Amino acid sequence: MADNFELKKRLMGKAKAQIKEAYSSEEYALIQAINAYLEMNKQYNLVNERLSEWNGIYVPEFSAGNMPALAKVALALSEGRLDVETLKDALENPKRAEELFGKISMGMGRKMNGEEASVFKSFAEYSIRTNDTMAVLEAYIKAAAGRLLPNAAYLTDEKIAAELLARAGSIERLAMLPAGTIQLLGAEKALFKHIKFGSRPPKYGVLFKLADVTSAPKHAKGRVARAYATKLSIAFRADYFSKRFIAKELKESLQKSVAGIMEDAAKNPPKAMPRQGAGFRAGRKRKR
Amino acid sequence: MADNFELKKRLMGKAKAQIKEAYSSEEYALIQAINAYLEMNKQYNLVNERLSEWNGIYVPEFSAGNMPALAKVALALSEGRLDVETLKDALENPKRAEELFGKISMGMGRKMNGEEASVFKSFAEYSIRTNDTMAVLEAYIKAAAGRLLPNAAYLTDEKIAAELLARAGSIERLAMLPAGTIQLLGAEKALFKHIKFGSRPPKYGVLFKLADVTSAPKHAKGRVARAYATKLSIAFRADYFSKRFIAKELKESLQKSVAGIMEDAAKNPPKAMPRQGAGFRAGRKRKR
Repeated sequence: MADNFELKKRLMGKAKAQIKEAYSSEEYALIQAINAYLEMNKQYNLVNERLSEWNGIYVPEFSAGNMPALAKVALALSEGRLDVETLKDALENPKRAEELFGKISMGMGRKMNGEEASVFKSFAEYSIRTNDTMAVLEAYIKAAAGRLLPNAAYLTDEKIAAELLARAGSIERLAMLPAGTIQLLGAEKALFKHIKFGSRPPKYGVLFKLADVTSAPKHAKGRVARAYATKLSIAFRADYFSKRFIAKELKESLQKSVAGIMEDAAKNPPKAMPRQGAGFRAGRKRKR
Repeated sequence: MADNFELKKRLMGKAKAQIKEAYSSEEYALIQAINAYLEMNKQYNLVNERLSEWNGIYVPEFSAGNMPALAKVALALSEGRLDVETLKDALENPKRAEELFGKISMGMGRKMNGEEASVFKSFAEYSIRTNDTMAVLEAYIKAAAGRLLPNAAYLTDEKIAAELLARAGSIERLAMLPAGTIQLLGAEKALFKHIKFGSRPPKYGVLFKLADVTSAPKHAKGRVARAYATKLSIAFRADYFSKRFIAKELKESLQKSVAGIMEDAAKNPPKAMPRQGAGFRAGRKRKR
């Protein structure tokens, strides 16, 4: 019995040490931070949709171009201090602010009572707080991704590198992945739809957020994403194994490849609307 | 020309006055507040899922029973002051807290660095702030629904009355709706699915949140919701037209009806699993 107890204790101790070891790298904190950030980013948009609608019953004349401006105006409104200066500050366009203030002073909207003003104020402050917390998370993500994934972060940006890490689960796994898988990280849903129902295969997942992919013409987006994925797979290996900074050369060579793809895409425009043609449709059978 | 200008000005003035009139009732602020509250409620759950996962890399031994407790523990952890007292306070179960603290002190989780602690603290504080803002919104919803919909709020509760108002768009519309429509407010998606694809018709929408509906046996839920909807349609009319408080009598009579339905449901249990029978399936044709 005593021996059994000893054995159990030793095995438990080993298991615990393994768990501790597994969490010892900062990459797990970075994964949590980027996941929290992405979740908050979605929520921030929804909160501001609500805030914009609510704001609209008091100043139907106003529509904000950006979310921090909306929150500033809503806060000023709830405190009864919406003047032309606040509008100028929020809109960063003095002429539009003055025009708008003229319209608002004619007072088409609802006058709020005291209780209403204080609850509306809370909600506007919440929107500001959400934005502030996101900024804190973002600063940490930048710092940590710069430390843990310097090559990948230099090649793309810190948030994209961190999101790829969150999708893969660990830097070790990232370093093992082939370029084709890196290219499709974040497109798992579309990939399974392709495999199961024969829809068109995805060309990019997280990498769609890259400015170079977004700005490429439609028929070249996939190739640009592929060029990035190829260099990223080298960058992740350097981040995990050698820990040397090689991203400068990688980026130069990547920029050359992208320029080549864009040139080629400009010379060979896609054939006239292949999506609508009968040939394409025939090829798009549902395999079940 | 001068006349035209005069006319235009007068018409514009009238249109503006109409918009002002349309927003003059507090019900529009209440609709905004309940919509904001419901949105935040969803977000609060998602934020705490993330917080719980993040917390788990530092104290994998801990799992919170409720969300405010989780935030308290996470905050204490981020400030390096997680002791047995904090756990007792958060868990409201001294024995479990002591056991848990024993396990945590053995330290299976990750030790956080300074930067990490401060970003984790921000996120824990954000969860607390979300909860606080929801409490402010809830207090306003209770007060405003009590003022604007005293009968309906007494019959159900303030949040359900406000949600029905938000679905209908105005108290005037609520007062015009037949009981059958009130019963299905919030079930629009299921209703259209029923109409379009012949799926089973919904039995309740927002009213599913009523404790009496939730606790009723499955084959009586629809009838309980119907009883509520019938009395609610009277309550909304009183709230809009006479503004007299008649909900006391309504509630007594409603409680009698519900008791009757429950008694009847207990006496007549549903036939053995009709859902699985061939007869039922045959009746569930897809109409397209």
